[in-house]
Amino acid sequence: MTTSLNYPSEKIGLPPGTLVHVGEVHEADTQISLIDYSKEVVEELQIDSIEEILKYKNNSTTTWVIVEGLATVDVVETIGREFDVHPLVLEDILNTHQRPKFEEYDDYLYIVLDGLLPESTSENEQFLVIYEQVSILVFSNFVFTFKEKKDELFNPVLKRIKASKGRIRSLGTDYLTYAILDAIVDQNFILIDALDDVVTYIEDALLTSDPTKEILNKIQHLKRDIIHIRKSISPVRELMSGLLRSESTLINQSTHLYFRDVSDHAIRVLESIETYRDILSGLLDIYISSISNKMNEVMKVLTVFASIFIPLTFLAGIYGMNFQYMPELALKWAYPAIWVVFITIPVVLLIYFRRKKWL
Amino acid sequence: MTTSLNYPSEKIGLPPGTLVHVGEVHEADTQISLIDYSKEVVEELQIDSIEEILKYKNNSTTTWVIVEGLATVDVVETIGREFDVHPLVLEDILNTHQRPKFEEYDDYLYIVLDGLLPESTSENEQFLVIYEQVSILVFSNFVFTFKEKKDELFNPVLKRIKASKGRIRSLGTDYLTYAILDAIVDQNFILIDALDDVVTYIEDALLTSDPTKEILNKIQHLKRDIIHIRKSISPVRELMSGLLRSESTLINQSTHLYFRDVSDHAIRVLESIETYRDILSGLLDIYISSISNKMNEVMKVLTVFASIFIPLTFLAGIYGMNFQYMPELALKWAYPAIWVVFITIPVVLLIYFRRKKWL
Amino acid sequence: MTTSLNYPSEKIGLPPGTLVHVGEVHEADTQISLIDYSKEVVEELQIDSIEEILKYKNNSTTTWVIVEGLATVDVVETIGREFDVHPLVLEDILNTHQRPKFEEYDDYLYIVLDGLLPESTSENEQFLVIYEQVSILVFSNFVFTFKEKKDELFNPVLKRIKASKGRIRSLGTDYLTYAILDAIVDQNFILIDALDDVVTYIEDALLTSDPTKEILNKIQHLKRDIIHIRKSISPVRELMSGLLRSESTLINQSTHLYFRDVSDHAIRVLESIETYRDILSGLLDIYISSISNKMNEVMKVLTVFASIFIPLTFLAGIYGMNFQYMPELALKWAYPAIWVVFITIPVVLLIYFRRKKWL
Amino acid sequence: MTTSLNYPSEKIGLPPGTLVHVGEVHEADTQISLIDYSKEVVEELQIDSIEEILKYKNNSTTTWVIVEGLATVDVVETIGREFDVHPLVLEDILNTHQRPKFEEYDDYLYIVLDGLLPESTSENEQFLVIYEQVSILVFSNFVFTFKEKKDELFNPVLKRIKASKGRIRSLGTDYLTYAILDAIVDQNFILIDALDDVVTYIEDALLTSDPTKEILNKIQHLKRDIIHIRKSISPVRELMSGLLRSESTLINQSTHLYFRDVSDHAIRVLESIETYRDILSGLLDIYISSISNKMNEVMKVLTVFASIFIPLTFLAGIYGMNFQYMPELALKWAYPAIWVVFITIPVVLLIYFRRKKWL
Amino acid sequence: MTTSLNYPSEKIGLPPGTLVHVGEVHEADTQISLIDYSKEVVEELQIDSIEEILKYKNNSTTTWVIVEGLATVDVVETIGREFDVHPLVLEDILNTHQRPKFEEYDDYLYIVLDGLLPESTSENEQFLVIYEQVSILVFSNFVFTFKEKKDELFNPVLKRIKASKGRIRSLGTDYLTYAILDAIVDQNFILIDALDDVVTYIEDALLTSDPTKEILNKIQHLKRDIIHIRKSISPVRELMSGLLRSESTLINQSTHLYFRDVSDHAIRVLESIETYRDILSGLLDIYISSISNKMNEVMKVLTVFASIFIPLTFLAGIYGMNFQYMPELALKWAYPAIWVVFITIPVVLLIYFRRKKWL
Repeated sequence: MTTSLNYPSEKIGLPPGTLVHVGEVHEADTQISLIDYSKEVVEELQIDSIEEILKYKNNSTTTWVIVEGLATVDVVETIGREFDVHPLVLEDILNTHQRPKFEEYDDYLYIVLDGLLPESTSENEQFLVIYEQVSILVFSNFVFTFKEKKDELFNPVLKRIKASKGRIRSLGTDYLTYAILDAIVDQNFILIDALDDVVTYIEDALLTSDPTKEILNKIQHLKRDIIHIRKSISPVRELMSGLLRSESTLINQSTHLYFRDVSDHAIRVLESIETYRDILSGLLDIYISSISNKMNEVMKVLTVFASIFIPLTFLAGIYGMNFQYMPELALKWAYPAIWVVFITIPVVLLIYFRRKKWL
Repeated sequence: MTTSLNYPSEKIGLPPGTLVHVGEVHEADTQISLIDYSKEVVEELQIDSIEEILKYKNNSTTTWVIVEGLATVDVVETIGREFDVHPLVLEDILNTHQRPKFEEYDDYLYIVLDGLLPESTSENEQFLVIYEQVSILVFSNFVFTFKEKKDELFNPVLKRIKASKGRIRSLGTDYLTYAILDAIVDQNFILIDALDDVVTYIEDALLTSDPTKEILNKIQHLKRDIIHIRKSISPVRELMSGLLRSESTLINQSTHLYFRDVSDHAIRVLESIETYRDILSGLLDIYISSISNKMNEVMKVLTVFASIFIPLTFLAGIYGMNFQYMPELALKWAYPAIWVVFITIPVVLLIYFRRKKWL
Repeated sequence: MTTSLNYPSEKIGLPPGTLVHVGEVHEADTQISLIDYSKEVVEELQIDSIEEILKYKNNSTTTWVIVEGLATVDVVETIGREFDVHPLVLEDILNTHQRPKFEEYDDYLYIVLDGLLPESTSENEQFLVIYEQVSILVFSNFVFTFKEKKDELFNPVLKRIKASKGRIRSLGTDYLTYAILDAIVDQNFILIDALDDVVTYIEDALLTSDPTKEILNKIQHLKRDIIHIRKSISPVRELMSGLLRSESTLINQSTHLYFRDVSDHAIRVLESIETYRDILSGLLDIYISSISNKMNEVMKVLTVFASIFIPLTFLAGIYGMNFQYMPELALKWAYPAIWVVFITIPVVLLIYFRRKKWL
Repeated sequence: MTTSLNYPSEKIGLPPGTLVHVGEVHEADTQISLIDYSKEVVEELQIDSIEEILKYKNNSTTTWVIVEGLATVDVVETIGREFDVHPLVLEDILNTHQRPKFEEYDDYLYIVLDGLLPESTSENEQFLVIYEQVSILVFSNFVFTFKEKKDELFNPVLKRIKASKGRIRSLGTDYLTYAILDAIVDQNFILIDALDDVVTYIEDALLTSDPTKEILNKIQHLKRDIIHIRKSISPVRELMSGLLRSESTLINQSTHLYFRDVSDHAIRVLESIETYRDILSGLLDIYISSISNKMNEVMKVLTVFASIFIPLTFLAGIYGMNFQYMPELALKWAYPAIWVVFITIPVVLLIYFRRKKWL
Repeated sequence: MTTSLNYPSEKIGLPPGTLVHVGEVHEADTQISLIDYSKEVVEELQIDSIEEILKYKNNSTTTWVIVEGLATVDVVETIGREFDVHPLVLEDILNTHQRPKFEEYDDYLYIVLDGLLPESTSENEQFLVIYEQVSILVFSNFVFTFKEKKDELFNPVLKRIKASKGRIRSLGTDYLTYAILDAIVDQNFILIDALDDVVTYIEDALLTSDPTKEILNKIQHLKRDIIHIRKSISPVRELMSGLLRSESTLINQSTHLYFRDVSDHAIRVLESIETYRDILSGLLDIYISSISNKMNEVMKVLTVFASIFIPLTFLAGIYGMNFQYMPELALKWAYPAIWVVFITIPVVLLIYFRRKKWL
């Protein structure tokens, strides 16, 4: 199985707020990057200890802290203590089995969702989705993002901050949050492109060639994948409408339009997933129909062969009997005559079967 | 596949508001038409540069600008700048993969939906839908429509403006918007007529002749088509109810009745699509049943042939044995007697099979 | 197909308010009846020109105008002009493909729905539904009803007006509207009785006799019929709740109870339709199961015959070989011995098959 | 069919309020019982004429009138006249095809629902549901219940009134209504127990023995039964929440808790019905799978027999040919050699089939 | 069946408030534990009579009473009397067939839900769920929990109270309620892990080996299990949102965050159950497809064998005929020639079948 559902059963019984990393460990160490920017300047640096962040705390600039790898629990713990984050939020950040959600606190917003990436494979018949949980903490001039892996998910946003001096640099943390969410949600379109390829491949395979057990396996795996993708993406709609309804002062009114845009994208992704789900469930019906078609064809061949030759064999058997008194056997024209019968019967049956469209 | 879902994966990572045309390019060049009318006069002209529009800006007349072909990005950009349209809206106009929606801004309304047209084919067994995204920007005395192709979608509306001096000429941009939406939604009825033809063709084919692989392919393609049509039409209901709920001053109270009419049509189209979906999913069941029926028939023929001739062959085989001491062989009436058996057995079996309704 | 979905594709492009009759023409001419009544007197007459109606306009009596046949467009046009009806409403009356709905205007109410009648056929295996669109315009002392055909749909209401001097005569147009709606909705119960007969017939046929292609066709046709009936009846619930929520002064508070009663009936009809839909979709499963059962039976017969006689034939074949040195052939008891084998093998196999419950 | 849907088609066209009994007549005569009680005394009597009730009208005691058998229309008519009940309510009481509902009037409440009872049969494979419509009219110190049959449905309530001097005797008509509703709803648990028995029986039959046509019939009948039960019970939830939302002065605030309890039970019953519906629809899939399994098994036997003996028969046939020049025939070891072949081929094939797990 | 639905049919007819234990009796005797704690001290003791509780009644400490085993009805009765609990609540506690729900009373809250535990089995192919009803009564400084069995469900909570001096000890009964609910809901993750194992096992079995009747039974049992689990867990979401909406003074505002956390978990569990339901219903389709595949394979073998050898046998039969005048028989090269035919025909057919991909 490419996708698994390891539930945090090891966590049960611990008091809430006990910070333990739950889930598969993708990165052994934790890497922290900091991007501090204002309209004029951008500063980017790798930091080792979380204390280095604190000096940006009273700046008016926007500071974005990217934490990659969650195994080092005390990074999250320190941020929680310094920025006064609720223990349950810290726990959720570390537990990488969260349902996407949006939570509003007095001083900050907490957003958690999944980044989905299709693994590139050489053949287009394969489909592999990588799930990564992304948590976002939004303060008035600080944004923390927590990821499980070191990958290029945020590169487009980083590039925009460094390149342009436009909107992203002059607007605050809410616009940065939008940019991050937009990058994550738009990733899903790549996923859907990949999904489209696989579905089209299966559909073509089904309609042109014979149904094989491999296609059945592919359909079943894709079905499971789509169920999991849907489970991951479906709550994002809710999350976005929570964000849109929010009256938090951390979100500028003018940024609402941008969040609405992300929300539209999320709905479109979800509708596409539903579409593929419908198509896929239709494919299984096609598969079953194809097998029946196939078996029908096999049966027809058997029936035609058997129906023609079994009566003939019987006929030959008759004149293979050893009765002493069989007058036909002595007739000179009997053997040619039986050949006429041997040829007539198949011809008649073949015409009959052709009329029935079995041939 | 006639319908594809090319997602704007090439767009990911660009900042919002970066105007790039996303989607298939249907027209190499962009053609701009302008219709300016009031109760008294109508003026229609083809324009080359968007600046020509500006002189109508402070007129009290209603001005309708039709942009056909979206590859020339700067047309949209100029309109956006001159009429102060939000960058996200401009982006949506150029990205031809929008979900139908209605957005209300202070000075204008933005509507985007799909025009669906069935391609006319010689035989009625074929079904091809052309999708075209139409964006509408409604100002107090300006309406912009952006289309992907040069086609006759708006001809009825143009004809009415030029012909009558009635309602459409005396009422403002909201009524023009209604007329445009009405023209687009009513196109769907042609689509549904075409759909009805194909479904009826398949249904008749299934119930009269034998199930073939071609019918299976037709059902599967139609299913996919209906899923896509539904995805395209389904949000129009929401769009229309957004328009009806809107309290924008751009929409006159008396025009609400007209929008409600379009809304009713949209709902009716959607319900018909759902109806065909139900019928189609029933057709697959009929297909599978027909194959089973067919196979049953084939099996019966095989069983009748085999059950009659296999025992007879065995009987003939007995008297083909070469045992020295087989008293029957010497009897004179043995050969005629065996013929009686050869005739009796099939007759008995045929009666038995006829009782079982296998013949 | 008994039911078709002719969409008004011929209407597309015409301005709203252009009065054209859309749909099948059932009656060449239009017949107008007028019933004027108060607690004391009833007057019923056939009228030729719509102008005859006008003299009742300022009466305090309740006047009911029944227009049968919609091909004569100017009847509707004149009524519209004289009673100041919105052009869109007139259009809806003439277009006989309306979705059932209720619309409230300042001076009048507009209700449109379908009258459904099962055609009586000699055998109970047939089922044919006649659809007729009925439009109702309710004014303070006038009710207009527009029907496509001359039939007996309103007879019960007419009879009650003429017979009793009770409630219907003393109450106003709202109660008359209730009586008309009640007559239309209650017709559906006859339909459901007819439906019940056909479903029961199919069910019995399936469970007692063998599955035939005819039953499959019947199921498919009934399925389609139920889909269309449902599409026609389903919006009536909405219509009725619109009426119940309405605060129009045209509806007396005390009449609400009566409308609620019709609403209850409409819900009951709809639930029954859903019930039959469920049962019917179950019948297709039963059909498929029955075919499989049948094929299983056929296969068993074939297998029993083939498994018994094929080995025996082989055995006979052995002693039909012409080898010079076959010592058994010379033995005197060989032939009786082989007969013992010929009898033993089938007996053993028959016991085996009976154990397996194949016989 | 055990359950039928006789719709009151005979009622159509009659004015509302015309009191006619609609539905199957279960009891020829009508029996009226009266229970009058207060905290101190209980009086129970059979009465012949409805006038005897009237003397209890101005009492402060709680009076419960049980009408069993609805064929005598004038009983209902008299109650309606004396207690000023709306004609539509009286009509609903007599028409035993009502959808369960709750209606609130100024002076009284009207509740109608179905009592469902499984008929006890000797074998546990049978399942028969008896439906009985129960109408309840609740006044400030009077409760009328109308039933179709004389049965023991209300016995538990009667027993409680007569036995205890507790809550039921000291509280008013609302508590009595609760007790009646509770008795009716709790009956459904017996039904569900019976349902559970039948479902378990079918499930066991399917998983242990072979699928027969009888099981198919049982599944289909049970499916139909569940559809009807659900149609009967499903609106009770709505009814109860109507009661709970009601602000009628006839219902004491403290009684709300009791109604909520009944409501919980009704929901639980409904959920169980849904559960059995799911399980049952799964059973049909199991049935179809079982048949396929079975056929597979049959096919394997046929294939094994045919594949082994058909080649052997051919081989024997070769040496049964009468060519003059067939050198093998003269060899002394030829016959034993062919026996080796006759034994080797089956052994090889049997090993092959066993490898394929066909044996 | 591992899961049964014993409904309290034995309860019907008893007045509400009659305290009878309904359901399976898991423990013969009742064990009562009491934990009394404040920030400073913890006291834990087993008590015999309920009177011992009363002395804690006027303490400011938090007191948690755990009742295990419900057969001793008078324990519940005494608590009800002493703490003034509504009779219906007491009844619900004793009736172990409750639907999970939350009820708010003036002085206390009542919560009832199911604890679900998968029974550990040696092989991973087995799956057994133990249901236990847990009732919680929350007072301002008292919490009563009623369980059916003595198990370790509450151990994690007990451990936390005894171990830490942190949050749980300083916060009141609402936080304790949260801790208990959290422990119960988190148990479900273990269940889902077990479910995942079984589903994966079945899926692997289906896709690698042949479909057997055992797998069918496993799928059917798992389906039933999931239906029951879902019925048990589904109302918990509602329960939690009831708790979250509650404005009871018994729940501190700051505890809401914790309840929201439990609610999130409950939703996640439910979504997982739904996911497995979808996957499982897909598995049955795969099962049916696999059987069809299998049968197809069997049919091909039969057809290949029969189609090759039946014509050959006929050919051999021809030259086994005893006609006197058969010129071929005398030819010297006839026998070798027929062998060429005997070899050519199978080769041609094998090539044909291979082209058809039957081999």
